[in-house]
Amino acid sequence: MKKRFVSEFLGTAFLLAIVVGSGIMGERLSQGNEAITLLVNSMATGAGLFAMIQCLGHVSGAHFNPVVSLVDFFWGRLDKVGLSIYWLAQFLGATLGVWSAHYMFYLPVLQISNKYRSGSHLWFSEFVATFGLICTIALSRKKNPEFAPFAIAAFITSAYWFTSSTSFANPAVTFARMLTDTFCGIAPSGVAPFVISQVLGALLASIVLKKVR
Amino acid sequence: MKKRFVSEFLGTAFLLAIVVGSGIMGERLSQGNEAITLLVNSMATGAGLFAMIQCLGHVSGAHFNPVVSLVDFFWGRLDKVGLSIYWLAQFLGATLGVWSAHYMFYLPVLQISNKYRSGSHLWFSEFVATFGLICTIALSRKKNPEFAPFAIAAFITSAYWFTSSTSFANPAVTFARMLTDTFCGIAPSGVAPFVISQVLGALLASIVLKKVR
Amino acid sequence: MKKRFVSEFLGTAFLLAIVVGSGIMGERLSQGNEAITLLVNSMATGAGLFAMIQCLGHVSGAHFNPVVSLVDFFWGRLDKVGLSIYWLAQFLGATLGVWSAHYMFYLPVLQISNKYRSGSHLWFSEFVATFGLICTIALSRKKNPEFAPFAIAAFITSAYWFTSSTSFANPAVTFARMLTDTFCGIAPSGVAPFVISQVLGALLASIVLKKVR
Amino acid sequence: MKKRFVSEFLGTAFLLAIVVGSGIMGERLSQGNEAITLLVNSMATGAGLFAMIQCLGHVSGAHFNPVVSLVDFFWGRLDKVGLSIYWLAQFLGATLGVWSAHYMFYLPVLQISNKYRSGSHLWFSEFVATFGLICTIALSRKKNPEFAPFAIAAFITSAYWFTSSTSFANPAVTFARMLTDTFCGIAPSGVAPFVISQVLGALLASIVLKKVR
Repeated sequence: MKKRFVSEFLGTAFLLAIVVGSGIMGERLSQGNEAITLLVNSMATGAGLFAMIQCLGHVSGAHFNPVVSLVDFFWGRLDKVGLSIYWLAQFLGATLGVWSAHYMFYLPVLQISNKYRSGSHLWFSEFVATFGLICTIALSRKKNPEFAPFAIAAFITSAYWFTSSTSFANPAVTFARMLTDTFCGIAPSGVAPFVISQVLGALLASIVLKKVR
Repeated sequence: MKKRFVSEFLGTAFLLAIVVGSGIMGERLSQGNEAITLLVNSMATGAGLFAMIQCLGHVSGAHFNPVVSLVDFFWGRLDKVGLSIYWLAQFLGATLGVWSAHYMFYLPVLQISNKYRSGSHLWFSEFVATFGLICTIALSRKKNPEFAPFAIAAFITSAYWFTSSTSFANPAVTFARMLTDTFCGIAPSGVAPFVISQVLGALLASIVLKKVR
Repeated sequence: MKKRFVSEFLGTAFLLAIVVGSGIMGERLSQGNEAITLLVNSMATGAGLFAMIQCLGHVSGAHFNPVVSLVDFFWGRLDKVGLSIYWLAQFLGATLGVWSAHYMFYLPVLQISNKYRSGSHLWFSEFVATFGLICTIALSRKKNPEFAPFAIAAFITSAYWFTSSTSFANPAVTFARMLTDTFCGIAPSGVAPFVISQVLGALLASIVLKKVR
Repeated sequence: MKKRFVSEFLGTAFLLAIVVGSGIMGERLSQGNEAITLLVNSMATGAGLFAMIQCLGHVSGAHFNPVVSLVDFFWGRLDKVGLSIYWLAQFLGATLGVWSAHYMFYLPVLQISNKYRSGSHLWFSEFVATFGLICTIALSRKKNPEFAPFAIAAFITSAYWFTSSTSFANPAVTFARMLTDTFCGIAPSGVAPFVISQVLGALLASIVLKKVR
């Protein structure tokens, strides 16, 4: 379990460093063209996430996401203690990742986002994105599981664009993005409904998957 | 067959949500640079389509496309009832996908496109694109079929750019894009000749494939 | 051999339709930003080439390139008759591909390029690009050959950017690009030195490969 | 060992030609939009690096990076003589690669960068990038090693964006980028702290890897 803790911690830390760092770099260089910023943000996230899953999938399953661990708990693959350890690793790693990104870009380490993200269309987006992500993870591992990292990373890259919320789809990511007042931040008031939408999307996925798998 | 219905329904729904949603997002952020809009649209579609095929290929074959099912019917892999079920799932899913994209981007759910798309060069484009798509699907599954999802998604990403119609290559997609007055829409008057060109392209592919396979 | 002719013909035709068509589309949409035009041109070429090799590699080896066939002839894998048939298929296919692209974009089918491309730096670029391409093809097929299509397409995508000539690296492509007065064209006067540089690059590759393989 | 020398020499030469050449091409075409320049630079590097690793991995391990060879030396996979030969090949190849890029773009072959790169945030970036790179190389080869080239190339593509230094993560690359006064150059005064940060990152990776593998 120690190995798995380190794996979830490191993977989630890199995931957040990538999401936040590439958002900062994109914003700095793109001369205000947000499409280019989101393009590099989504490409860097997809590529980096792929590398992380490829490297750490066989160590801890490469969840890096509390609702993925939650689904594993529902399906009896993770017990209560395991779930707690995974969650701890994910939230601590996510926080460290954001802070590292700030330090790498010479910004104050401690920040709180002022980016207001609220509205039923955003919550529905998070619901759809998380539903899709959980389905992708579960289904891509059924056949040719060695290609699952490609499928998961490709889904996330795509989901940046087809949802109005840019697909957080991950409570640890949502929490940690509250801690950065840069391109990919989310103001504290927006966090709870995002997380609730994500949990609901994951629940629906668990139900649908029983019919499709 | 119930599993396969759900699979075709969900896959086509996500495909359309991706095509329409990423088109809206691209248009909103790209400051009028259509090359950037089409770039993110094609990239999101390629990545998302890859994920869907990887996930659902072993469930229903991951057609998400009535002419692909039609070719399977010609080749005796799908009977009349099966074909009807696939088509129903694809058209219903495509419609739901477009409506979900509208809701995710806070737009009126019910729309009809005003984007005029007509002309022999567009129809020839659809003919070439569908010919290429059917060939890619059939040939990529002959050897190393686990790489077929890459080949199919790569072909579509490329075809967005080398055809003047941006490669609909799919009657369910064409029909559903009629239901959105956004970047990727098509006015109702343009639908029939697009679909006819697609069917002709698929027919030629069936003939040529007998010689190359 | 008939199957292989059709395969080389179709593959080279699609390759050129992709190179020329995506260049036209990129130029039309990018508002004069050539970096964006070349980005979509290189991305569409890489993705499309990958799909073609994945589909047709097991039929004809997916050369689509006279110097690749020439190297196969040197190594005794193709006899004189075979080489002639491959070359015929490639040049005919390349021509058809360019003409199809013109028709798809509503342009006059018959054109001659006015784009002057000359200079020792361009010829050296073609030499390096073709050297790299032949090495990539030969070496990527030694181990894990099912990944060779990825390596070859990735090399070409990259070579668009790191050579000043944007890496034609293919006499059939060079000849056919003479037939289009659009983004990717080359004036007739520039063709011969490009082809000579390509042949020299391929020759050096054949020699070096004996030492590395 | 002769084969391996040629492999490391050629691979590192191409790597640098790609990094420098695509930077020049990007800068020339992007009309001053640095996000687009870095986008094509990172994409070309990722794609080209993938091709090189895929081709040469089974010949020499495809290090192309002195700290990767150093870690192999620590782990007893390379002796002192082997390490010296790898380092020689990498530094010579890197230099040739930069000079070739200059010649391909019709620039003076001999240059020294004037691009000032200094500051603790850049050094921390190099530390994180090299730590991540060494972890990615080691972990991605544990399971499904045939996918390691994808993971390594994806990590580098991502790291261009999430570190403020754009991730040199390689002493031979750092040294050689001193020799070009173009987009990706680094002034001589900046080289030593970059290399020290890289070595420290590699050391930490060696220690952490013992716990996770």
